[in-house]
This record gives sequence, C-alpha cells and structure tokens, in this order.
Amino acid sequence: MNLASDNVVGMSRPVLDALIAANGGGEPAYGADSWTAKAEKMLADVFEHEVSAFLIATGTGANALALAALTPPWGAVFCHEESHVIDDECGAPEMFTDGAKLVGIRGSGGKFTVAALEETLERYVPGVVKSVQPAAMSVSQVTEAGTLYSLDEIRTLTGVAKAHKLGTHLDGARFANAMVALGCTAAEMTWKSGIDVVSFGATKNGALACEAVIFFDKARAENFQYRRKRSGHTVSKGRLLGAQMVGYLENGHWIDNARHANAMAATLASGLGAVPGVRLPWPTQANEIFAVVPEGVAAALAAEGIRAAPWGSLSLPEGFVIGAGERFLRFVTSFATEAAQIERVVAVAKAATTRTAAE
Amino acid sequence: MNLASDNVVGMSRPVLDALIAANGGGEPAYGADSWTAKAEKMLADVFEHEVSAFLIATGTGANALALAALTPPWGAVFCHEESHVIDDECGAPEMFTDGAKLVGIRGSGGKFTVAALEETLERYVPGVVKSVQPAAMSVSQVTEAGTLYSLDEIRTLTGVAKAHKLGTHLDGARFANAMVALGCTAAEMTWKSGIDVVSFGATKNGALACEAVIFFDKARAENFQYRRKRSGHTVSKGRLLGAQMVGYLENGHWIDNARHANAMAATLASGLGAVPGVRLPWPTQANEIFAVVPEGVAAALAAEGIRAAPWGSLSLPEGFVIGAGERFLRFVTSFATEAAQIERVVAVAKAATTRTAAE
Amino acid sequence: MNLASDNVVGMSRPVLDALIAANGGGEPAYGADSWTAKAEKMLADVFEHEVSAFLIATGTGANALALAALTPPWGAVFCHEESHVIDDECGAPEMFTDGAKLVGIRGSGGKFTVAALEETLERYVPGVVKSVQPAAMSVSQVTEAGTLYSLDEIRTLTGVAKAHKLGTHLDGARFANAMVALGCTAAEMTWKSGIDVVSFGATKNGALACEAVIFFDKARAENFQYRRKRSGHTVSKGRLLGAQMVGYLENGHWIDNARHANAMAATLASGLGAVPGVRLPWPTQANEIFAVVPEGVAAALAAEGIRAAPWGSLSLPEGFVIGAGERFLRFVTSFATEAAQIERVVAVAKAATTRTAAE
Amino acid sequence: MNLASDNVVGMSRPVLDALIAANGGGEPAYGADSWTAKAEKMLADVFEHEVSAFLIATGTGANALALAALTPPWGAVFCHEESHVIDDECGAPEMFTDGAKLVGIRGSGGKFTVAALEETLERYVPGVVKSVQPAAMSVSQVTEAGTLYSLDEIRTLTGVAKAHKLGTHLDGARFANAMVALGCTAAEMTWKSGIDVVSFGATKNGALACEAVIFFDKARAENFQYRRKRSGHTVSKGRLLGAQMVGYLENGHWIDNARHANAMAATLASGLGAVPGVRLPWPTQANEIFAVVPEGVAAALAAEGIRAAPWGSLSLPEGFVIGAGERFLRFVTSFATEAAQIERVVAVAKAATTRTAAE
Repeated sequence: MNLASDNVVGMSRPVLDALIAANGGGEPAYGADSWTAKAEKMLADVFEHEVSAFLIATGTGANALALAALTPPWGAVFCHEESHVIDDECGAPEMFTDGAKLVGIRGSGGKFTVAALEETLERYVPGVVKSVQPAAMSVSQVTEAGTLYSLDEIRTLTGVAKAHKLGTHLDGARFANAMVALGCTAAEMTWKSGIDVVSFGATKNGALACEAVIFFDKARAENFQYRRKRSGHTVSKGRLLGAQMVGYLENGHWIDNARHANAMAATLASGLGAVPGVRLPWPTQANEIFAVVPEGVAAALAAEGIRAAPWGSLSLPEGFVIGAGERFLRFVTSFATEAAQIERVVAVAKAATTRTAAE
Repeated sequence: MNLASDNVVGMSRPVLDALIAANGGGEPAYGADSWTAKAEKMLADVFEHEVSAFLIATGTGANALALAALTPPWGAVFCHEESHVIDDECGAPEMFTDGAKLVGIRGSGGKFTVAALEETLERYVPGVVKSVQPAAMSVSQVTEAGTLYSLDEIRTLTGVAKAHKLGTHLDGARFANAMVALGCTAAEMTWKSGIDVVSFGATKNGALACEAVIFFDKARAENFQYRRKRSGHTVSKGRLLGAQMVGYLENGHWIDNARHANAMAATLASGLGAVPGVRLPWPTQANEIFAVVPEGVAAALAAEGIRAAPWGSLSLPEGFVIGAGERFLRFVTSFATEAAQIERVVAVAKAATTRTAAE
Repeated sequence: MNLASDNVVGMSRPVLDALIAANGGGEPAYGADSWTAKAEKMLADVFEHEVSAFLIATGTGANALALAALTPPWGAVFCHEESHVIDDECGAPEMFTDGAKLVGIRGSGGKFTVAALEETLERYVPGVVKSVQPAAMSVSQVTEAGTLYSLDEIRTLTGVAKAHKLGTHLDGARFANAMVALGCTAAEMTWKSGIDVVSFGATKNGALACEAVIFFDKARAENFQYRRKRSGHTVSKGRLLGAQMVGYLENGHWIDNARHANAMAATLASGLGAVPGVRLPWPTQANEIFAVVPEGVAAALAAEGIRAAPWGSLSLPEGFVIGAGERFLRFVTSFATEAAQIERVVAVAKAATTRTAAE
Repeated sequence: MNLASDNVVGMSRPVLDALIAANGGGEPAYGADSWTAKAEKMLADVFEHEVSAFLIATGTGANALALAALTPPWGAVFCHEESHVIDDECGAPEMFTDGAKLVGIRGSGGKFTVAALEETLERYVPGVVKSVQPAAMSVSQVTEAGTLYSLDEIRTLTGVAKAHKLGTHLDGARFANAMVALGCTAAEMTWKSGIDVVSFGATKNGALACEAVIFFDKARAENFQYRRKRSGHTVSKGRLLGAQMVGYLENGHWIDNARHANAMAATLASGLGAVPGVRLPWPTQANEIFAVVPEGVAAALAAEGIRAAPWGSLSLPEGFVIGAGERFLRFVTSFATEAAQIERVVAVAKAATTRTAAE
C-alpha cells in the first residue's frame, strides 16, 4: 500500500472513459480540438466567470507558466518558504520567469500571515533599482503542510497584495480537496477572494496528467499561448488533455473524488491520532496527514509494505520538537484509497505501539 | 477527412490498451514506475545499445531539451533553415539553451549538404570571442520537406560535425517512417552513423503524447533529469508515458504503423502525381506528400472536406516556381489512414482537373 | 600603425579633460551625479527631443539592452545577416532578451532592402503560435560594411516596420560618422525617420568607454533601469560615463572628430582605389574602407607594421569574386588618424604593386 | 560631506595618472592591450599564484559572472540572507546564472555560521531531482554589516563547502579593507583559505570603475571569456580597465588607501561610540560604521550636510532593538576621507546630544 503521495495511482474510471471516447476520429491539433473546447467551457462554468484556461500536463509546468505571466525577470514573487514553487520544482519558476526571485516567507503549518507578508514587503521597495521589484504573491491551497487558508485569510492576504500592486496566484495542485474541505465554491476560493491566476490541479485527484492555468482577466493571458508553446507544453494531440478534464469535471466527479479522499484522510488522522505516542503537529484539513510516530511504528508500517513519505519541515509550530526516537511521516489519501486500507494502517500502528509497550 | 498532419488522429489500439493496462494499482511517481522501466529496456533493445532514455510528452520539449544538453548558452546549433527546431517551436530551443543561436543552413528539399555545412562553419571560429561557439548540429529525419537523408549522407554530415567537435542531434519526430523507408535499423540510422542524441518520436505514429530523448553516451545525459524537471516535463504519474511507449514498441507495432503510413503516402503520391497539372517538387520518401496543385483541385478538395495543409517553403528546387493559379499543399498519412481515403483524394483531384479542362 | 579598428586608440583630449574635471569631490553614485544629469540634458538637445537616455560602458551592452526593451522572449528581431548584433556579440542579444530570435536578412553591402524585409516578414505571421512573433527591426548606421542608409531608405524601412507593429532600433556605434556623412541632424536620422531607440556610440569616436541608449518615448524606457542594473551595467561612480559624454558632446567636439575620421577615410579610399590591382567592393561612405588588395600589397603593409583587419563578407555585390591571389582588408580611421599615416599606407601599397609588376 | 558610501568619490591620483598615461597611442582592443597584460601579471603577484584574471567595470557584473562560473541553472548558491548578491543587484546573479537559486542563510552581523550552513545544506540533497542542486557558497568579505570573517572562519566554511562539493566565492568589493584589517595577505584570505573565485574590488578603494574576477584554477575559467563578452562586459578600449588596475596596485597604493580608510573608520567609530545615546550594534572592523543614533543627532548631521545612509538590517544581534526615537545609519570612509571631516561628524553628533540633554 502506497500512501506516500496522491500521484502513485492511475486515472479514475470516468477520466479513463473520456480518454477512450476521445480517441477515435480526426481532431485539429494543438488544443483546437472539440474536447479542449468543451473543457474550457466547463471550467468557465465551474468558476462562474469568463476564463482564459490553458491545459497543461504537469503541475510544475502550470505553476511556472502562471508565475511567468505575473512577474518580469526583475520581479519578486512572495510565497511560503516551503511552498512547492520555491522548493520542489528544481527552479522551474526561475527558468520560466527568466530569473525572477522567489522570496520565501516563514510561517507555521505551511501558511504565512499578513503580518509576515507586510514585513517582507518592506524590504522590497518599488523603484529602488538595486532591489528586485515586488510583482506577485503565490499561496498554496492545500498548503505543503496539508493545511488550508480560510476564505477570510485569502482575502486579507490578497488585499495586502493588491495594495502593493502584486498579481496573485493560487497553487491549487489539490484545489478540489481544499474547496470541498472549506465547503465553498471554486469562485469563492479564487476570484471572489482576490486571486488572479489559478493552477487548477486535476492529476492528484483522478486525472492522469492534467492541470489548467486559469486567468479571470483575459488581458493577463495575452501572451500565455506563446509561453506555453515555447516551453514545450502545448500538446499536439490536445484531446489528451481536453478529454481528461472533461471526464474529471463531468457530473461532479472531481468533487466526489475529493470528498472521498478527504474522508479517508480524516479517518486516518483520527485513527492515528488515537495511537499512543503518535502526534499530529497540525490538524488534518484535506487529504494529507502529517504524523510524528515512534520509530517502532514507522518500522512496523514499512515492514507491512505501507509506504508513507519521510518528511521534514521548517514550519513546525513553535516548541514542537521531534525526538530522537521519532519519525516524521506524511500520508496522502486519494480517490482510490479504500477504507480497509486506512483500517489496516491504524491497526498496524496500534499493534506496533502495544508491542513496544509490552517489551 | 483530415490529412493536414499526422497528429490529428488519436492513439492506435495497442497504445491505448497499454494505457488501460497500466492504469490500475500503485506505482511510484516521477518515472520510477515499472512501465517506464520496461520502456527504457525496450528502447535499449531497439537501439542495440545502452541508452539513457527520457520520456517526454511533446516533441518540442524533447527537441529543446536535447539541444540544451549539447550546447552552452554561447553556442551555435547548425540546422536546416526550415527545420522544426528553428521555425516551428516558438523559440523553445532558445529558451531551453538559455539563448544559444540556431544557425539556419540553406538547402533544397529540406536538406543541407556537407558543402553548405562547411561553408557555414567557416564563419564560426572556435575561440573567437565575439562569435557564438560551434556546439552542435541537428538534422531532421524525416525532414520538414518529407525527404530523407541516406545513411551515407548522415555519416558524412556527422563526420564533418565531429571534426569540428560538434555534438550531433537527430530530430526523429517521424523516426519510424524514416527508418522503414530506408530499410535500416534504428542503430544504423543513429549511433552507427555518428548521431549522439535522438528525439525519438512516437506521437505522430500511434502514441497520444510520447517522445523519448535517447543518449548513447551516459556522460552527455548527466544533468538531463534536472533539465527535464526544471522545464516541467517530468510527468508525475510517469506510467502515462511508460505505458504508451511500451504499447508502441511491443510486437513491432511501431514498425507496422510506419509501414502502413508510408504505403498510403506512396499511393497518394503516385495517384496525385498522375493527375494532370499536379506537380511534386521532390519525391515522397516517407509519409508526407508535397504537391503543387491547380487552384481548382485545391478548391475541390476543400469542398469535399478533405483537409491538407497550405504550405510555403524556402527550399524548393532551383527553378521550381509556383504559378499564380497554383496552390502548394502538404498531405500527411498516418497509421489511421485508409486506402479508401486515398482513393477518394485522388478521385476528387482528377475530377476537378477534368471539370476544369471541360470548362 | 593600427588601422584595424577605431577602438585601438584612447580618448580624445576633451573627453579626457572632462574625466579629470569630474574626478574631484563627492557625487551621488549610480547615475545620480551632476555629470550624468548634464549629459542627459545635452543628449536631449542633440536629438531636439525629450529623451530617456541611459549611459552604458559598452556597445554590446547598449545594443543588447536596447533590443531587450523592444522584444519579448518569443519575439523576432529583423536585422541584416551580418549585423553586429547577430554576429559579433557572442549572443548578447539572446541573453538580454531571454532568448528572442535574431532573424538575419540578406543584402549587398551590409544593407537590406524593403523588399527583403517584407519577404522575410511573410514567414512570421502574428498570432501563429508555433512561430516567434515579429517584434523589432534593427538597422546599423554605419553598417558592418561601412555603408550608409539614406534618410529615405531609413524612412521606408521603418514605415514597413511600423505597419507590422515592429519597434525600430538603430545601432549607431558609428552614429556621428554616419550623421556627418549624410549631412543631416541627429533628429533627422532617428525619430524623424521613424526610429524608436538608438544605440548612440561615443567610444569609437573619441570616448574611452561610453555609449547611450536613447528612447524618444518614455513609456518604452519604463523598465530599462532594472534591465541595466540587473545586467551589471549601472556603473557605481556614474560620473565616469557622464563626464565622458559631456566632454564628447561639448562644443561640437563629436562632430569634429567624425568629420576628421571621415575625411581621412575618403583620402585613403581614393588613394588605395587608384593603386593598380586594388578593388573596393562598395563606396567608402563613412570611416571604414574595405579593399580587396593583391597579396603582395597585403604582405607589404604587414611588413611595414600597418595593421588592417582581414575581412570576410556574405554581402559582396553579386558577381564580385575575391581571387586566390587577393586579400580582403578593412581599414578604419578615427579622430586620431593623421594625414601622414594615410599617405604612408597609400605609398606602401603603391610601391608593393610596382615592385610586383617589375618582378 | 557625503559618507553614505565609498563610491561617492572619484579616482585616487595614481589611478588617474595611470589612465592618463595609458591614453596615448594604439593598443589592441578587447583586453589584448599591454596595460591589461600588466594588470594580470600584477594580480598574479598580489595573489602569489597563477591566476585567470578578468577585468570588469562593475561589481555587480563581477559577482554575477563569478557565480555563473560556479553553478548550473539548476544549482543553489548559499550566501548570507543580506548579502549584496542576493539583495542589492536586482537579480543579476539570477540573470547571469540563467536562473540559479540564491539561498539566504540567517546570521547576526552579516555573517553566517558553519552550523547554519550545514543546517541549510541538509535541505538540498544532491540527486534529489525536485530540488535545486547544491553548487556554490558565496561569502562577503567585508560583509554587508561591515564585519569580517576571520581566516579561521573562512577556512571552516570552505571546508564544509568543499565536503559538499560546492565551489567557493568571495565577494571582495572591499577586499583591501578586509585584508588590511586582518593583517593578512591576499593569498591567505583566498586560495590558502579554500576560496576558488574572488570578486576583487578596486572601485570603492580608489579606482573609478574596475573590478577583477580572479580564478586560481584555470579550468574553472574556461568559458569565462564568452560569458563576459555575451553579457556586454568586455570593454573595447580595454586599457580603460587595465590602466586603472595598474595604477591601483602599483607601489602598494591600494593598501595605503585601505589603511587610510580603515583608520578613518576606527576614529569615527570610537568618536561616535563615545557620544551619549549612540550605540554600535557590532564592532567596526573595516571602513564601515553602523550606528544607532538619537533622532536629534541624525537631524543635526543632516542639517550640517553630513550624509550617511539610512539603514535596515535583519541581522542585528539578538535582543538589539532600535527604539522609536532612534535612527540606524551607515557611515563609510574611503581613501578620500579626511581626519577633519571625521572630527566634524563627531563634534556635530556630540553637540546635538548636549543640546538635547539641555532642552
């Protein structure tokens, strides 16, 4: 059982079915196909807004392209210091923005506060030539710590960003998980809260390789098609992406998938949380569980073929220390996670603790 | 009927079947899956050589990454002046190489000669600081004009390239079509003929979105994984690419596809060539037919819903002039082209000519 | 005697004097000094127009920064195929534009025609995503062949450029030599003829290391200060550049220098042109003489310590062939060239010819 | 009186004299002149080592080029979070390295510790593809806080760096001030302490616009000439740089200048330090004095035309808080600072305090 990430599983059935349905017959290449057109229409419906939507096969591609649309090469992009864009994309944003600077902001639980944003902004004064120029803010929703910004928090952050003339980006690699957890609409979590550009992820929640970059203001998207082509992210048989997105969105499938994954995560969190010696540094809000477990538990899980991701974090709550005999693990649930799997994880963890206590 | 390109159709059945087969169960992400491993093994077999193979979803991504591995930012890449890398990728090679210069060489029928290469090289002297430095040569096989370099021609070009310490790249977006037409092996067309790096295309010949960059010398591939990740071309659910390549290569399927496409092209070429007033500027050697047709023929085809690509070329043979009442069209056949379709194209063209003559 | 270029001499006296005068006392750094302010004011006077002027120590820096202000990374810059920006700057424009494409246009004598420009533009259709997008045109005045565009020619070229929404750049590394030769004003040769941005060279005509990038529309210069800083071209003790430019422009000194250099060139051209066996492929219009000389003449000059630059060119007039016993040389005069030097060059050439004839 | 920086003054006399001496006669361009050759020889003597030395007009250019020689685009450069390269060059290192990541390390007084370096390195694991790869370490000597690393500290830092296969860079914009303060040789502060590449500054200590990038291993400098040309930093009349460096180094002039500046700084520090209410957050070790002064003192200095730079810093010692009625100022002395000026600054500060006390 592999719970190290939500990208270790394949497509969900409706996505595969759409891909099969799209396979026959001729379709214009490079995104001019009917499936892509339908996907774009559906995305506009999902966001209750006219959108310029661009389908892209990878999350790194989507994020890097989105940021490139928001900053000049001499710009600064403000984000959490452990965000995916700054830490996990091998410098893709720097490549796509032609060398803009990602400025990491500290903050507990994967989130940064308005105060921290404002303090950071003070160091980057517009018009001071020696300094890179404030250009954009990027927030991750779900964050790298599996936590969520509330709608209020997003609005307050984007308010400060707008006051400083920053473009605003939301990295929604786990967009659906966040939306479902907050019980809000896609519109509420984005443009109604001051977000300009969204990386709308589908891959982790049921697609095979499909994300969308969504602009609510067409003017910002003006040159995006050239950026996408030039970075090799314009797929020639565009129906590959169009069909995935259609299958993903149709009949609320994406929402069902996210609800399921989040429910599995909640179960796992409460189950693990009740195991003696297991500590959760912050609440499980979407489909990722971060747990500090006794070494024996980690070993038992591994022995049973249950894979979780060894973790490290700069944003542990103040005073939260990981002991020498402890391991920090991330578990991620997905549309494909089964209740029985969760039960087994908890059972193995419990058994390991009991065993240890008995020794 | 759309014959404008070979990317207007979907996957061939065995590729789709592999994708379906690969969908179930957990697999490590980012190319560490079993399907990708199997694909890499099969590619080594195909090329009869140890290879470093990297799967990538788009041809532009594959080409730009391959060239970036061969040239520093201050390097020159020598290629035909109408090659895909210089003309059709919106500057992707410039982006991925951080600004290297693609130097276009003139030549009839999409090919450049050894003499032209040598003459061009004279202008880029190693060590002369004001000049970009000779770094690589890229040949397209099939070329943009649908023509082929013979093995001898490739060997002679790479011989000159090696003498000037250039790395050598083969853009094989239509690799199988070329190989089948030449009746040679993949090894003969590449490393046995002095090629260092290959963009091995599968998309146009039956896959949905899958290419491979192939290195025969692992040292050249040393940093390729970082380049791929950093450009957003490392697909998280890597089985998407692995499965396509396995389905494509298994049981010689790729060769069957290419044979079929080439045969359809030959039929179309001879059929069209026999239509009065139709002229082919150069022989049809793989799966692309370039034809100068009377205006009336172009109109008739369009009226019948038969799509070909309007073309333009700098590399028409000397003295070959397109008249005012003529149109230059490209037809491309694929694994999915049916004999009946070809018959219909020819019939429509013939009828149009007869009609015109009768008027 | 070194006539290989006009950058083999030092500063002219008034420039040095200004540098000395500027050396004492405190001045704000990074271009906020009084000398730079004065230079900017003088440049506005020279061009009879409000300008945004940026002083830069090198011509390559000035050109690359100017082009970067005119094109996005996915843009095309149209220029002569032997222009300095495409051939002699080791890819600086590609670096500064983050990978834009310089498209070389053929043309005799270092100049391209309106017809050639229009033909080239046809291949780069705005909105066609696979193609880099037409962005700018750059003309060199004086050209790489030492020739000049007439004001009419500049106006016609910029007319076509404007019709295609291209920004227009004039590489004026030898601006003064051109202006003096045409007998026109700086305004006439630039904004009155449709030029948007100028690389205004002073180094080759009397300064030590000083050029200016001149914008006539402040909007185009909006981000230039960041580009300059970020490329390391904002000199901290800015008075270095400001004083040079003041000394250069004051009292018409720059015009005197250019007149002298051009006059020396005219004398050399007529003197050499009268030597039997010496051929000039095109007229000498400014301060560069291109001459095809018998091998014996080349050897004699070298033996006498007279240095000229061995040349090669793609833009020789049709039918102009350089024989096996001939050498192609470039001679460049400057403010420092003396009449006696010119006489000596001609005398040595003549003597060599006579000797050869006598043998 | 302007003490805001050491770049508000001109050249010192011997540098100007060298420039004048170098002005006459012909010299090959682009750094092939005799002055540059002499400067290179002198630099080898100064460093007691064979060097590849490259003269460059600006410190930002020198730093960015040096770092580009040490890291690939997917590399990480570790430096203090307030270092000049990360904070004050408008992203030049990102531009020149084609997008490498500068990773800022916290540390009091402008310095980072070995422990902090090691902790940071743990987050960048070689071979983990999603992460930028550890490539280089850059230390500033003098630091942004005017403090110094001891030779022991440099050796320990480079020891860790080497163990992690990082290239090592020393930003010596105030190299001479540091060397003189430590009482060591140039060799001891660099290659004998594990430094691979040095930005050797002359501008702030008496030159007008001259720095050198120094490599001790020629292999590392292999492509540097292309990088310099391509970034527009190869000055055509190279004697401009060569002569400055010769004048700067000859007869130990650079050492005299630095000694004088440091002595002036020491006097100012002790004078200001004795003024009631003035606090120095860290010791003055070279030619920069950082002082927290009562508002009234700041106002009095300004009123007397004495300019210092308003400062801000993330690296104040723990617990050091700047009060509401205080101002944080930086004073910088140079070769041109006079003892009488220092006396006046102290006197004005004292008088202001007395006045305030009396009110």
